[in-house]
Amino acid sequence: MKQLQPYRRRINYYETDQMQVVHHSNYARYLEEARLDMMEQAGLAYDKLEELGIIIPVLELHDYYSYALHFGDTVEIHAHITRLTPVRFHLKYEIKSMEGQLLHTAETSHGFVDTDFRPMNLKKKYPEIYENLQQYVEDEPL
Amino acid sequence: MKQLQPYRRRINYYETDQMQVVHHSNYARYLEEARLDMMEQAGLAYDKLEELGIIIPVLELHDYYSYALHFGDTVEIHAHITRLTPVRFHLKYEIKSMEGQLLHTAETSHGFVDTDFRPMNLKKKYPEIYENLQQYVEDEPL
Amino acid sequence: MKQLQPYRRRINYYETDQMQVVHHSNYARYLEEARLDMMEQAGLAYDKLEELGIIIPVLELHDYYSYALHFGDTVEIHAHITRLTPVRFHLKYEIKSMEGQLLHTAETSHGFVDTDFRPMNLKKKYPEIYENLQQYVEDEPL
Amino acid sequence: MKQLQPYRRRINYYETDQMQVVHHSNYARYLEEARLDMMEQAGLAYDKLEELGIIIPVLELHDYYSYALHFGDTVEIHAHITRLTPVRFHLKYEIKSMEGQLLHTAETSHGFVDTDFRPMNLKKKYPEIYENLQQYVEDEPL
Repeated sequence: MKQLQPYRRRINYYETDQMQVVHHSNYARYLEEARLDMMEQAGLAYDKLEELGIIIPVLELHDYYSYALHFGDTVEIHAHITRLTPVRFHLKYEIKSMEGQLLHTAETSHGFVDTDFRPMNLKKKYPEIYENLQQYVEDEPL
Repeated sequence: MKQLQPYRRRINYYETDQMQVVHHSNYARYLEEARLDMMEQAGLAYDKLEELGIIIPVLELHDYYSYALHFGDTVEIHAHITRLTPVRFHLKYEIKSMEGQLLHTAETSHGFVDTDFRPMNLKKKYPEIYENLQQYVEDEPL
Repeated sequence: MKQLQPYRRRINYYETDQMQVVHHSNYARYLEEARLDMMEQAGLAYDKLEELGIIIPVLELHDYYSYALHFGDTVEIHAHITRLTPVRFHLKYEIKSMEGQLLHTAETSHGFVDTDFRPMNLKKKYPEIYENLQQYVEDEPL
Repeated sequence: MKQLQPYRRRINYYETDQMQVVHHSNYARYLEEARLDMMEQAGLAYDKLEELGIIIPVLELHDYYSYALHFGDTVEIHAHITRLTPVRFHLKYEIKSMEGQLLHTAETSHGFVDTDFRPMNLKKKYPEIYENLQQYVEDEPL
């Protein structure tokens, strides 16, 4: 498996709520940033995929909030592909402080669809993209 | 000029920030809600306009924050068309508490463009829509 | 178990993304709106709870995206308490179209904490609030 | 006047809307990021100011949208203090493409208030912070 860099990200003021911590809805956005960054590192920039007519909607999202994030914090997000099939892929995420403390874990699963949201067999339709993704699947994630 | 109803709206928890008030970026969203509601009352639902290929991007936004909004508040937003030309329109907004206190004023201006973002002369291209909008222009706004 | 009204909600333009559907991060916000509305119907308005020093952060969030939501759609969100313990509670959600089609299901779990984010035994600290919540727990959810 | 670095920022997928461009409400967030980054460069990190009880709400926001921003774009935001009084300050912003094209201009004005939102005379209360900010005021902005 090829090695990818974690995604580094600072917490913005407007992402906090009156509980004085990051509002929980923002994590889905952080995960998306990390996922698209990971795919770009893998040579699969998402704007290029959309130009090819490959849309990758989220089918499931699972967030496990362990420690709150605060304005000004810098975090590293590790995104891993844990499973790839011709029509779906699954990712696992860890958000860590710069000192390495695990703050949040998450999982998402995604389908490959065309611009009309019809399921696409990525392996058949774009075998080279499928094979590229396959290099990044981790057998023993996390 | 035909009379339209103000748009009523409750403030959500996720719209607050750690200052314990609504984050200022959300007002542009409240104004959009009120503007699209006003246009729908005028028979110009925005999804119908987009289907016709009429896109109405924001060209300018001016926000004057007088009193903060808080989670749980209910407000009324009054949106008025203050000026209409064949290629642009301008709106003025007032956000008021249910007791009638003025909390925020704002202005936006918009262009009419096609789906390629090229300017459109709405008066020529869709005269009936233009005339419809014209009924709602207020000479003496607010 | 007392009966509560589902929460009705219209989809805003600014909640869409360039996939032409609602961005998946917004569902957490819709769920929050429905959850706080449900609690208010139960006599437990969240601003009152915060004034008492009861904070209810999200510990887990699970979203199952079945059908996309679009700008202008109106949906009904059914929020049910599925489990209550002295220190936590769990909810299940269904988002349905006005025709009754199931579009999305979700689950959240929450802890009761004080303003310093220390775990709180709600049953001991605020027995009347705990008992109130208990009336709304559904044995056979959904 | 001391020289500060512009703030570099990439556009996220979730910041787009179904018009296929960045939703206009996000610019207020980009400006906030640039403003807080600028202040941190000036030795005035906003979390430190909040700890001192100095809150700096937005009083006015003016956005001039010239060219749309797209997912994946990288932009540079130049934030300049244009005026400082003991109770307020004013900023001007330019958002530019990496090739130097001007895409957006904006202005904000802010008050200095205490944690109860009462106006604060920053020059009297925190003269050293006021003097620090003064070094960054531009006579001939932009």
